[in-house]
Amino acid sequence: MKKFSHTEIGKIIDQLDFSKLEGNLIPVIAQDEVSNEVLMLAYADKQAIEKTLETGWAHYYSRSRQKVWKKGETSGHVQEIKDFITDCDNDSILIKVKQIKAACHKGYYSCFYKTLDKGQFRVNSTRIFDPNDIYEK
Amino acid sequence: MKKFSHTEIGKIIDQLDFSKLEGNLIPVIAQDEVSNEVLMLAYADKQAIEKTLETGWAHYYSRSRQKVWKKGETSGHVQEIKDFITDCDNDSILIKVKQIKAACHKGYYSCFYKTLDKGQFRVNSTRIFDPNDIYEK
Repeated sequence: MKKFSHTEIGKIIDQLDFSKLEGNLIPVIAQDEVSNEVLMLAYADKQAIEKTLETGWAHYYSRSRQKVWKKGETSGHVQEIKDFITDCDNDSILIKVKQIKAACHKGYYSCFYKTLDKGQFRVNSTRIFDPNDIYEK
Repeated sequence: MKKFSHTEIGKIIDQLDFSKLEGNLIPVIAQDEVSNEVLMLAYADKQAIEKTLETGWAHYYSRSRQKVWKKGETSGHVQEIKDFITDCDNDSILIKVKQIKAACHKGYYSCFYKTLDKGQFRVNSTRIFDPNDIYEK
């Protein structure tokens, strides 16, 4: 994706509605640019959207750590932004990304790896890395 | 999707985390079961999830109207649940659906119809119905 100037970023952010969720957050869905697989849902504040548009890499806001984080900053499993899309109400974001290795910190390509099957959630895909190899305990 | 008994639904709901968003809501991404296009993002409370699993049709919680609603109850543009998926933290839902006509009340197949292009949000698809024909003004 083309990277944007501060003026352009300000104009884009002014069109988005951060008022719907507590803490002025907007939900962001990350989707694989090729397969259209949904990879994760996270939240962004204005600063996280600014960083995303400025750098071309997905940034989110961590409510537990109360700070903006770059996806993949620890694991290297970054997300390169290919498309930045908003919805009818401008209160949700969909990003199409090139995902390096895997989106989920549990080792799956997508965080949505549990599908309801005969009343139980069952793993629907194969783990592609061992979290113990990536994250410090 | 198989429909579930009250006991089964209770056990499924007990595994989901409604504590992350104000009002005990969980975000629900609706995705086209065939094309994998993301159709919309909405929120559900426990009762909306119950109704979804009980009936096989997507139900959400409207924060503005403060009640559970069946998607398509006015327009007829219902969503038949094909898969019910949760993520690593059990705090987001992804439903794969068969979408009747279109998901967006503005007349587009997907609510995510505005893509950033040279610094502007531009419509990325063709309107398939006129909202004035469907909704009372």
